[in-house]
Amino acid sequence: VELLTLARDLKRRKARERRTLFVVEGVRGVAELLRSALVVRGALVTPALREPPRGASLLTALEARGVPVEEVTERDLASAADTEHPQGILAIAEVPLHTLASLGDRLGATVRLLVLDAIQDPGNAGTLVRTGAALGAAAVIALPGTADLWNAKAVRAAAGAHFRLPALHSTAAELLAFLRLHDVALWGTAADGTPVDALVPPKRMALAVGNEGAGLGPGLREAVEQVVALPMAAGVESLNVAVAAGIALWALRP
Amino acid sequence: VELLTLARDLKRRKARERRTLFVVEGVRGVAELLRSALVVRGALVTPALREPPRGASLLTALEARGVPVEEVTERDLASAADTEHPQGILAIAEVPLHTLASLGDRLGATVRLLVLDAIQDPGNAGTLVRTGAALGAAAVIALPGTADLWNAKAVRAAAGAHFRLPALHSTAAELLAFLRLHDVALWGTAADGTPVDALVPPKRMALAVGNEGAGLGPGLREAVEQVVALPMAAGVESLNVAVAAGIALWALRP
Repeated sequence: VELLTLARDLKRRKARERRTLFVVEGVRGVAELLRSALVVRGALVTPALREPPRGASLLTALEARGVPVEEVTERDLASAADTEHPQGILAIAEVPLHTLASLGDRLGATVRLLVLDAIQDPGNAGTLVRTGAALGAAAVIALPGTADLWNAKAVRAAAGAHFRLPALHSTAAELLAFLRLHDVALWGTAADGTPVDALVPPKRMALAVGNEGAGLGPGLREAVEQVVALPMAAGVESLNVAVAAGIALWALRP
Repeated sequence: VELLTLARDLKRRKARERRTLFVVEGVRGVAELLRSALVVRGALVTPALREPPRGASLLTALEARGVPVEEVTERDLASAADTEHPQGILAIAEVPLHTLASLGDRLGATVRLLVLDAIQDPGNAGTLVRTGAALGAAAVIALPGTADLWNAKAVRAAAGAHFRLPALHSTAAELLAFLRLHDVALWGTAADGTPVDALVPPKRMALAVGNEGAGLGPGLREAVEQVVALPMAAGVESLNVAVAAGIALWALRP
């Protein structure tokens, strides 16, 4: 398939899942992709990319890795891009193959996992992948109802975190079986939980965060061993879910 | 001025500043605005808003507060809206008049302020206002280079925090004079700072966060008494600025 056609197709989640490919947009994102070990299938660039020094050095890096590059118009790039400002470049890469089984083999004595329960906004989902990576989570696991972690907006918000840490989708049943098998406790955040200050976290812990409006889904809520709350100023409903996850992972760090 | 014309004009920062008005888009945002003490000048609604129960109850609330309502087409609403999904409603309200002088009068013995140094993205700026409010900051102060805090995207990301806590713009010189006058220490976050765990925060503290790429600007960096770093997992460049601010305010809470 021609790269432009392929990139356009990959705007659809179904196409990304079937092809196990995803798109990275923008200069910084593609630069980070090229520094990773991921397989890059090709890149679309516009003539304008050659001008800034950063763009030119990116082209050199693409060439050095033997990545097929196709020059397209600004208009064509916009038709294939999902974010507002692809900055003259978009790359197509293979989704790294991570499963709960492959993750199980690499868990250490101390474990943090971040679980996303129905996080619908791709920007929030991506920022959560970034937050999990920064705070030492071994993986970020998205449950049904969550935006596709390989959506271009999510990839952009994660600022390269997808390239370093396993980010994968799973059902709740599979996740719960996995956590039991590997003796990982499931905790979750909710406004009516125990204040985080009062808690001593277990060595092996998965932290679940839910939709800002709805909180944790009923299935997951029942499975959570400990509900954690972040005390907040009076009159304030909630934190952004990625900010809340960051504070909770920090407060519950091993 | 007709409400539709006014709303369109308010998409420009200059118009918002001159008129000291701003726009709130979406059902949830307008509902929160109506629960606040802010003066609401008017609302634009589409016929579709009347259908969902939430929309209908919002119309009742607008009526109860005596807010002028103008019905417009979806197309007209889109022309006045700044966010992608205004959900059939947009309201125009007065920017509450907060200044550093008025803020000085209400500072307690323990103070937290959040300072935004050149946070260009309106979504990040708004999420920072929300984060500051949730973590007990007395105000959020935006320095030059920061997106307008009254931009519709920023207001939306703040989820109503603008209606509860003073959010204002200031120059660095004015802010530094204010902090000296009120004996508030200026701390700031940067990757090369002292790990936050090793620090005991002062009772009266302003925390400055900078642009993710560039960090704190040179002027502010020199004025900062203590640079604070959040230890992060290897290979991870940085956290989203709102997540970083949330963790730092949490870790340095009084």
